[in-house]
Amino acid sequence: MSQSNRRILLAERPSGMPTAESFKMVEEDIPSPGTGEVLVRTLYLSLDPYMRGRMNAAKSYTAPVEIGDVMVGGVVGRIEASNAEGWTAGDIVEGTLGWQDYAVTDPAALHKVDTGLAPISTAVGVLGMPGLTAYFALLDLGRPVEGNTVLVSAASGAVGAVVGQIAKIRGCRVVGIAGSDEKIDYITDELGFDAGINYKTEDLGDAIHRACPDGIDVYFDNVGGQTSWTAFEHLAMNARIVICGAMSQYNLMEPEIGPRNLRFMLVNRAVMSGFLVFDYVDRYDDARAELAGWLKEGRLQFKEDVTDGLENTVDGFLRLMAGRNFGKAIVHVAS
Amino acid sequence: MSQSNRRILLAERPSGMPTAESFKMVEEDIPSPGTGEVLVRTLYLSLDPYMRGRMNAAKSYTAPVEIGDVMVGGVVGRIEASNAEGWTAGDIVEGTLGWQDYAVTDPAALHKVDTGLAPISTAVGVLGMPGLTAYFALLDLGRPVEGNTVLVSAASGAVGAVVGQIAKIRGCRVVGIAGSDEKIDYITDELGFDAGINYKTEDLGDAIHRACPDGIDVYFDNVGGQTSWTAFEHLAMNARIVICGAMSQYNLMEPEIGPRNLRFMLVNRAVMSGFLVFDYVDRYDDARAELAGWLKEGRLQFKEDVTDGLENTVDGFLRLMAGRNFGKAIVHVAS
Repeated sequence: MSQSNRRILLAERPSGMPTAESFKMVEEDIPSPGTGEVLVRTLYLSLDPYMRGRMNAAKSYTAPVEIGDVMVGGVVGRIEASNAEGWTAGDIVEGTLGWQDYAVTDPAALHKVDTGLAPISTAVGVLGMPGLTAYFALLDLGRPVEGNTVLVSAASGAVGAVVGQIAKIRGCRVVGIAGSDEKIDYITDELGFDAGINYKTEDLGDAIHRACPDGIDVYFDNVGGQTSWTAFEHLAMNARIVICGAMSQYNLMEPEIGPRNLRFMLVNRAVMSGFLVFDYVDRYDDARAELAGWLKEGRLQFKEDVTDGLENTVDGFLRLMAGRNFGKAIVHVAS
Repeated sequence: MSQSNRRILLAERPSGMPTAESFKMVEEDIPSPGTGEVLVRTLYLSLDPYMRGRMNAAKSYTAPVEIGDVMVGGVVGRIEASNAEGWTAGDIVEGTLGWQDYAVTDPAALHKVDTGLAPISTAVGVLGMPGLTAYFALLDLGRPVEGNTVLVSAASGAVGAVVGQIAKIRGCRVVGIAGSDEKIDYITDELGFDAGINYKTEDLGDAIHRACPDGIDVYFDNVGGQTSWTAFEHLAMNARIVICGAMSQYNLMEPEIGPRNLRFMLVNRAVMSGFLVFDYVDRYDDARAELAGWLKEGRLQFKEDVTDGLENTVDGFLRLMAGRNFGKAIVHVAS
């Protein structure tokens, strides 16, 4: 174990796809917790598409990471030292502690991980932000009804895979879009999706038409761009569209251009909703309990794409940005 | 009065803006009502943007008008002869009877006009389809709350003017977008809008920013295209977007192109809903009663753009397509 604290900082604001030069690793002393604080050792680090947005200067739903600041990110860690009542060395916790070996924090921002539920890495996966996103966005905004056709993009990803499995639990016909035959085989053979579409090798419009012959009742959008606009041409009446992410757009130098007629909304009396998981924080515990129950019953599978070592975090992130991850992208930092 | 039935037929499917050649007027004998039918004399004919869509071959929310068929349209008329129980010569009725002097119809498709409420022409205006559209789309989908900022496009039009006034009745700050200073003066001076934006002479983004300093809570969209995408950049958190029409797009030879990122939906947790008034038919009577009450109290103003004579219907329609009408476009066919 390192006796220093390696920290990965944002070195520049990338234009288009980030590169290794967008980040800089520094070594600092391990910080000491002050009164009411704890020191957390990072065990797993989460890599997520939203991080790309935080590298831009533009104000979004939250402030950008400043140049020279440690990159933002969810962490599963172990408390190494505690000056906070109710928190003990050895506790496994989850929190937004960034791309580094160690962090000092007020534990109010942490969540204690129930280590009996599942491997602790799931606290940033199926039982963490991506799983909660899938749960609330699908159930609250997508409102799937038994027999509905649910189409989900980035279907083998951390959010999409959970969306599809919950939709199956709710009795829906589920179709996933992904970028390789291996991913399509995974979602259909292992996760129980009814059909999969490889958007890189198939004509998307034709494939959606075939896979969703009665139209799309719920379109769960993780990617945006042309994929979504093609999906919008195949909505069923009273369709619900959940805008959860726009991975296809995050690394474009110029915004994607296309016809942007919203007539499909009117013709189908569709409802499109933008989603951010932070709005549901009061209900996280209940949702986590239900997700954990499905995990235990074997009704919810998960797959992790593990990068080994904090020093390889940037590589793992760039693989995620290129869509080359397969499953929830995490970094195994320490055991 | 004519002793024949003049009928205006669709002569061709226009590419882009319709012209006089898109229509053809024929004279036929006045038809006779069969058993259970009535003969209706057209008094007022409604001209509405949706008619342009019905001139295209494409299936939309309803079937297109076929070439050689009488153009579709709402009519306020007088029953001239009745073979249907409960319907009497002299009754004033409203129905979708088309661009013609006379129509024979099953009265099940008609609505009796209460002539005591307001001038009968309002049965295709503020107390008809446009008024009901404004009422349900704003209240059910826009869900304005006192103090909200409501932005409405085509604000002096048949729907927009009613939307803005209902939003004022509900205690909102109301901003309208229209295409001439005369229209802006009308909505602010006579209808009580808080501000107006002439999209032809002002920078729309700057003007929205000034007029909606706290962002847009409800964007009521009658026009689509660039106007809407500019509005989307100024949403408040939890904004509601109502897609009611897309007048800017109906006559384009090529679809309008632009960046079509839906990130604004996510950042603002916005909800966008497509609207069609036909879904609310069970509640028409209640809505009409409330609208009529506001009319009587002087809280709802209306303005009509009257074309005189069925033979001038095409001129009136082309003026509407060009945005040169000022108020609800109707044709006065007979007294």
